[in-house]
Amino acid sequence: MAALARSVLVTGSSRGIGLELVRQLAASPQPPQHIFATCRDPKGPRGKALQELAAQHASIKLVQLDTVNLPSIQGAMQAVGSHLKDQGLNLLINNAGISSHATLHSLDSQEMLDVFATNVVGPLQEFLPLLEQAAKGVGKEGLSCSRAAVINVSSKLGSIGLCLGLPEAPMYPYRASKAAQNMVTRCLAVELQDKGILCVAIHPGWVKTDMGTEKAPLTVEHSVRGILTVLASLSQDASGAFLDWDGNSVPW
Amino acid sequence: MAALARSVLVTGSSRGIGLELVRQLAASPQPPQHIFATCRDPKGPRGKALQELAAQHASIKLVQLDTVNLPSIQGAMQAVGSHLKDQGLNLLINNAGISSHATLHSLDSQEMLDVFATNVVGPLQEFLPLLEQAAKGVGKEGLSCSRAAVINVSSKLGSIGLCLGLPEAPMYPYRASKAAQNMVTRCLAVELQDKGILCVAIHPGWVKTDMGTEKAPLTVEHSVRGILTVLASLSQDASGAFLDWDGNSVPW
Ligand SMILES: NC(=O)c1ccc[n+]([C@@H]2O[C@H](COP(=O)([O-])OP(=O)(O)OC[C@H]3O[C@@H](n4cnc5c(N)ncnc54)[C@H](OP(=O)(O)O)[C@@H]3O)[C@@H](O)[C@H]2O)c1
Ligand SMILES: NC(=O)c1ccc[n+]([C@@H]2O[C@H](COP(=O)([O-])OP(=O)(O)OC[C@H]3O[C@@H](n4cnc5c(N)ncnc54)[C@H](OP(=O)(O)O)[C@@H]3O)[C@@H](O)[C@H]2O)c1
Repeated sequence: MAALARSVLVTGSSRGIGLELVRQLAASPQPPQHIFATCRDPKGPRGKALQELAAQHASIKLVQLDTVNLPSIQGAMQAVGSHLKDQGLNLLINNAGISSHATLHSLDSQEMLDVFATNVVGPLQEFLPLLEQAAKGVGKEGLSCSRAAVINVSSKLGSIGLCLGLPEAPMYPYRASKAAQNMVTRCLAVELQDKGILCVAIHPGWVKTDMGTEKAPLTVEHSVRGILTVLASLSQDASGAFLDWDGNSVPW
Repeated sequence: MAALARSVLVTGSSRGIGLELVRQLAASPQPPQHIFATCRDPKGPRGKALQELAAQHASIKLVQLDTVNLPSIQGAMQAVGSHLKDQGLNLLINNAGISSHATLHSLDSQEMLDVFATNVVGPLQEFLPLLEQAAKGVGKEGLSCSRAAVINVSSKLGSIGLCLGLPEAPMYPYRASKAAQNMVTRCLAVELQDKGILCVAIHPGWVKTDMGTEKAPLTVEHSVRGILTVLASLSQDASGAFLDWDGNSVPW
């Protein structure tokens, strides 16, 4: 099996799904040449698991990136760009996210905006030139993760059509942020396909992580194995799709 | 024809669709007893059209309400509550909204958050007790605007499925905010139906207003006549729907 992509950047890789994405990418038979494992605090205690992983794999580069802090995003972009020289970045996985359990009654608009800031806006804009550069690489045709792609880790709770699990899990800010993020994914897919960049939203399943809790049915290994298999299979016709870790389509 | 509702509150009624909603409601053969025409600046120059309208109709009460200012929302709720005594508010129309033409390249996260704050969060939470009070009124069954309802003025540009008019009109923040607002509408519909409160999202069409510009095909009179006809027809099975001014369903 060929490498999924020559270079991959994952946001929020200090724990949970992000950390496991980095782990499985690095351990794959044909690992990417550059795995930019980004997190808020790569040198501090929260980056410990990632530091240990990086010590075992030369492909992993730890990069500081806080998705709500523009100077931090710009710094990450500089660091990544200088590693990649003129080859560009093939695959950007926007995985960092926060949850919020606010109900209709406990909702507060500042909390809503904080969740939006983390889950919707993200670092895409700054990394676009690097993705465009990768898309232009020689011999590249069609759309794929090995050419240039943005994968937004979304959630089935962001499906307006399903409106799943209400009212037991109201989570208004989280749901609204993921619906907004899905809209951004679809718009990006339309705008960027002519530039050779694929954009897809992925629901990882309900996964045992700090966010998903121990009650979740899926292990993080299982979810991430599924996600990476789905990513490797993506082509032109997946542009703008909303898929789960098993490759099934999720309604908007 | 019976009155659409005994009491109605419209946000953003200084101009455009909001102003026309107030005008047509007040001029209808059986007008609501209380029309709370709210805007940011009811006494200043921006409230002039509304002041003139209120001078002609005793049913219209001007109330200050800035949808991004919590003390202003709370003040409006107090004023409205004391007018209504113990009858509650039947119909809340969240119409206030702002647009944003930001493209992927000009996007800035603060602008995105400002648009979210206005278009998604809104004054619902504070008015919920008044809506619940109305829903409990004697002889009230099923769901309808005459009993208790929240109508969120959305937009077809907020349809993730359609992703209409891209890339000519990128409008990322606006589209994302309306998708998020649609999610909130659907969640509210599920949570509030047992309390007798109907929640629906309405696309007014592309309308000649400051926001819609002169290029829009629909006059504000035409759009609002359609919206009010749709509102009068809504019952239980419309709970959580996304409809246009002509009653057609719009995909999420
Ligand atoms: N777990 C599930 O069941 C589930 C289901 C559907 C979707 N998802 C989505 O999957 C993604 C990953 O979730 P998870 O379950 O792995 O969550 P998690 O265990 O809570 O981990 C979240 C990760 O995001 C990072 N993060 C949060 N805010 C950040 C910011 N401003 N800048 C950079 N990184 C930030 C955290 O970093 P720190 O360590 O610095 O806090 C952490 O690495 C999220 O987008 C989530 O919405 C998860
Ligand atoms: N026109 C269209 O083609 C179209 C299409 C689809 C959806 N819509 C939706 O329809 C609704 C009304 O749009 P419109 O065309 O009538 O727009 P408009 O002519 O620009 O009027 C917008 C109204 O919202 C008010 N507003 C904005 N921010 C506010 C705030 N923070 N607090 C209170 N009021 C605020 C404005 O008040 P000020 O006078 O104080 O600024 C004004 O009364 C919006 O939700 C819009 O998204 C319009």
